[in-house]
Amino acid sequence: MKKKKKVNASILIIGNEILSGRTQDKNIAFISNWLNDNCGISVSEVRIIPDVEKVIIKNIRSLSKRFNYVFTTGGIGPTHDDITAKSIAKAFNLKYGFNKEAYKILENYYGIKKFNDGRKKMAKMPKSSKLIYNPSSAAPGFITKNVLSLPGVPSILNSMIENCKKYLISGLKVHSQTLNLYTVESNISYGLDIIQKKYKKSVDIGSYPFFRLGKVGVSVVSRSTSKEELKKVNKELHNLVKSKNLKILNLN
Amino acid sequence: MKKKKKVNASILIIGNEILSGRTQDKNIAFISNWLNDNCGISVSEVRIIPDVEKVIIKNIRSLSKRFNYVFTTGGIGPTHDDITAKSIAKAFNLKYGFNKEAYKILENYYGIKKFNDGRKKMAKMPKSSKLIYNPSSAAPGFITKNVLSLPGVPSILNSMIENCKKYLISGLKVHSQTLNLYTVESNISYGLDIIQKKYKKSVDIGSYPFFRLGKVGVSVVSRSTSKEELKKVNKELHNLVKSKNLKILNLN
Repeated sequence: MKKKKKVNASILIIGNEILSGRTQDKNIAFISNWLNDNCGISVSEVRIIPDVEKVIIKNIRSLSKRFNYVFTTGGIGPTHDDITAKSIAKAFNLKYGFNKEAYKILENYYGIKKFNDGRKKMAKMPKSSKLIYNPSSAAPGFITKNVLSLPGVPSILNSMIENCKKYLISGLKVHSQTLNLYTVESNISYGLDIIQKKYKKSVDIGSYPFFRLGKVGVSVVSRSTSKEELKKVNKELHNLVKSKNLKILNLN
Repeated sequence: MKKKKKVNASILIIGNEILSGRTQDKNIAFISNWLNDNCGISVSEVRIIPDVEKVIIKNIRSLSKRFNYVFTTGGIGPTHDDITAKSIAKAFNLKYGFNKEAYKILENYYGIKKFNDGRKKMAKMPKSSKLIYNPSSAAPGFITKNVLSLPGVPSILNSMIENCKKYLISGLKVHSQTLNLYTVESNISYGLDIIQKKYKKSVDIGSYPFFRLGKVGVSVVSRSTSKEELKKVNKELHNLVKSKNLKILNLN
């Protein structure tokens, strides 16, 4: 069996509506969880940028070089502010025009009479792009080199994500475990630091305060591609918890 | 009266928990709305990055040069993964050490006996930083040059944001208006494009599909620093709506 390697991705959210705060993003957490759980791909950076061509081009060029994959969301609809496809074509110096297969899918979906210019625009993409099929509203996403472009509407994006899988090389899945404790971070920070230093090469330990039923708590999250290392850390964390007389909570 | 100019900002979310999808970010929309409504500052870019020192340093250097302000969230607590303050000090080649005022605030809050090393760490910051007071859990945020550092926990961040105001120069507020229509984007895309082109220098028009009670709709959002230009666009949009026999919905 071929040994899997670490594979990473970045997410580029294209949309004034997210930047302005009008719309609460829901795609970042969804894509990131899906990529790790299904493909063993870790999201290493996210950027949210406006619908401005030169900004999109600059970010596509830079992120596509730095990460194995780039996922874009938004800007692939029929209106004037949907400029993702054209901008990606420019970023890679590719021609921008009708994709025959996408054109057929959309013509078939709308019927020839209702296939107006706005809808036709959704069949335009960078030359050589391959389609990411859309089971809910027909207009496909597309992959151009290592950049996968999806729509911004969460329900449509969610319905399409499985169709990205065939274009992705799987990597090492990151496993995680969480210990929830009623305590304050500073009570366990020294102990956590010692454990983190011991396992710095294999496990990432994060500490996140929470509030629940009027009480302050901490979630200690350990993440690693190795289940064995995670077990070792878990044992050390349980010893720390014991030494501090803390109880582990079962939260759901 | 001094004429206000456009002022922009970027947000740098520091935290593996957001990148991994474990935690849904709530700070971006909150900060962006607050900045525009209260200070006339527009968020132009957001980045989400891991708790890795060299990544934080690189992003602080780059964003602080490109934008009037940078807001960081996360990484200012007492645990080993809280490395924002130290990284910002390194980014600006400033010394990192105790801020006397923060030390006093925290010592006073916890009492000398309970003021342990983890808690003391929260008084450490880049030399010359000024404090952003924290009414809910004492540990202050801080401003270093044009970088304002806030905690990641939304309820605490929300309670502190007003205390950023005294450090910010106000800019031109972006006003927005929204027309909600039961239609599909492609029905109005041609008309929207014409209006957007006519007002391209003063107004940004965005078009966002929505689903409500089983029907498909579109929110047309116009944004501008000029209320007058917005009025003109509103009139043109109403004409477009009329010509298409559409009804404007009152959604809340």
